[in-house]
Amino acid sequence: MSKVLITTVPFGDKNAFPLEMMTNSNIEYVINPLNKKLKENELADMVTDFDVIIAGTEPITDYVMSKAKNLKLISRVGIGLDSVDLLAAEKRGIKVSYTPDAPAPAVAELTVGLMLTLLRSVQTSNLEMHNGTWHRFFGRRIPEVTIGVIGLGRIGVRVLNRLQSFGSPRLLVNDIKPDLDLNHQFKLEWATKEQIYSEADVIALHLPLTCHTKNMITKEHLLMMKEDAMIINTSRGGIINEDDLYDVMKSGHLSGAAIDVFENEPYEGKLNTIDRCILTAHMGSMSVDCRTRMEIEATEEAVRFLQGEKLTGIVPEEEYQVQREGL
Amino acid sequence: MSKVLITTVPFGDKNAFPLEMMTNSNIEYVINPLNKKLKENELADMVTDFDVIIAGTEPITDYVMSKAKNLKLISRVGIGLDSVDLLAAEKRGIKVSYTPDAPAPAVAELTVGLMLTLLRSVQTSNLEMHNGTWHRFFGRRIPEVTIGVIGLGRIGVRVLNRLQSFGSPRLLVNDIKPDLDLNHQFKLEWATKEQIYSEADVIALHLPLTCHTKNMITKEHLLMMKEDAMIINTSRGGIINEDDLYDVMKSGHLSGAAIDVFENEPYEGKLNTIDRCILTAHMGSMSVDCRTRMEIEATEEAVRFLQGEKLTGIVPEEEYQVQREGL
Repeated sequence: MSKVLITTVPFGDKNAFPLEMMTNSNIEYVINPLNKKLKENELADMVTDFDVIIAGTEPITDYVMSKAKNLKLISRVGIGLDSVDLLAAEKRGIKVSYTPDAPAPAVAELTVGLMLTLLRSVQTSNLEMHNGTWHRFFGRRIPEVTIGVIGLGRIGVRVLNRLQSFGSPRLLVNDIKPDLDLNHQFKLEWATKEQIYSEADVIALHLPLTCHTKNMITKEHLLMMKEDAMIINTSRGGIINEDDLYDVMKSGHLSGAAIDVFENEPYEGKLNTIDRCILTAHMGSMSVDCRTRMEIEATEEAVRFLQGEKLTGIVPEEEYQVQREGL
Repeated sequence: MSKVLITTVPFGDKNAFPLEMMTNSNIEYVINPLNKKLKENELADMVTDFDVIIAGTEPITDYVMSKAKNLKLISRVGIGLDSVDLLAAEKRGIKVSYTPDAPAPAVAELTVGLMLTLLRSVQTSNLEMHNGTWHRFFGRRIPEVTIGVIGLGRIGVRVLNRLQSFGSPRLLVNDIKPDLDLNHQFKLEWATKEQIYSEADVIALHLPLTCHTKNMITKEHLLMMKEDAMIINTSRGGIINEDDLYDVMKSGHLSGAAIDVFENEPYEGKLNTIDRCILTAHMGSMSVDCRTRMEIEATEEAVRFLQGEKLTGIVPEEEYQVQREGL
């Protein structure tokens, strides 16, 4: 009987259909008994005889794979592949699938919510009100500000879409492969990252974590930003250097930040001492509908694989190419 | 020389143009020296020899007017008139103007931001993260939920507009005078308030405070709402009974609330012990652009009046009718 290890938690929590799907296909599964994001060693100890991992963002390294003698498929619940050593998987003949479209609407919606929250100092007023202090903060509206979006993939474009009904902010955008067709849909100014850092009031990152984006934003870049700028990261931890963000905000620079993703999760760093920095627990994709869709798609792929059917979510060659350039 | 008392604070803070306008027109003005929302007695003591009040939401009662021997115009910065005794003003020959359109975009934008924040438990995760707890909350997206909007005036309609780019939630709406033309623009279900209470996942109030809306939502109505429903009030304090909201949320009912307006401001009540209740300090209209527009419009009206020009923001008869029915 084939065995599937589900590492990402929670799983099947709001909708048990993915679990039923496996039961009905006579697939044995185990849900991560530690009920937290696994470290490399914990995963290596756990993965020994499984054929498939339905994976979260825990590190699936060459070492982990060396301990997973039966592993033939990694089916990622989500889009980011920074946690999977694709080249090691390729070398070992382990297939890798993912669900790149499913999380995008939820991440985009959270991002716009964080933008509106930051622009009106809701998090700071809420904190003060709960401490008995009444202060009416001035804020700004979307059409009054310059919004910089770095990364116009599935999520970045959905953010632009959702902003449309709020009026017309100045939109500065950057992407490694600019899709100029987007100019038909939105009024965009394509800009360098440096121009976005220095001119935008609100900056949103929608990037994968790669060798090019790791520590992309350090103290130097944060200090290029306007004193009252705001930055949002709902993409991957490690793109903004967390220590630098702490130092810069501690010094009074930036009027707000919203950070949903961290270099090490669960996050235990110092940003939690900065009141105007909104922190959330990697919840970008955690809407019931998107999470369910991600779990179903990743499980369907596992079932297809174990029943010898054609896979539909296989990771494209360009993702391997990214890792060949160095993660 | 004519004298203007500006009671609402802050005023001229982000944009001094309204103050310049008065200086250039040889109008003497005083900005509320107590720098807080005035109580009836404080205002009565302050208002003695002024010709015009550029007013916030402090109570301008018959008693206050009886102390204001020179008062000829009340120019409200904003839309709500619950704080002004219109019938006493009429009896005394004091004109009343307001700026009903200016605040609407800012209030609508804040409301949508609060909706997105509540739907993803951002306020709760932020609090937990700042206390060192990592828990990934499930949330819901706009198109997954039923949104109830009570009051489809300038603000309620703008909320519907801004929701459009998020997909198609089920929209239950209620208004005292339903404008069925809105059906051409939005997919609406006109409903009773009771139906909204019992069926909506998120309820937003966009109502004036009148005898019909005061304590409109009490324990009975809050308990009709779904256990995980959320309620947002960015309109006027007193419409939701605050003690009842506290009791009901304390008991575990409702998954969230966002309250920007209070029966007595600054607010000093018990809701600040409820973590999942977002509290903000009457900041609905506090975007720089809308606040500036409100201040300029209210000041222009004062200048027009003192220069003997025709007023353009005069409060319509129907607002007096509302108060004739009892505030």
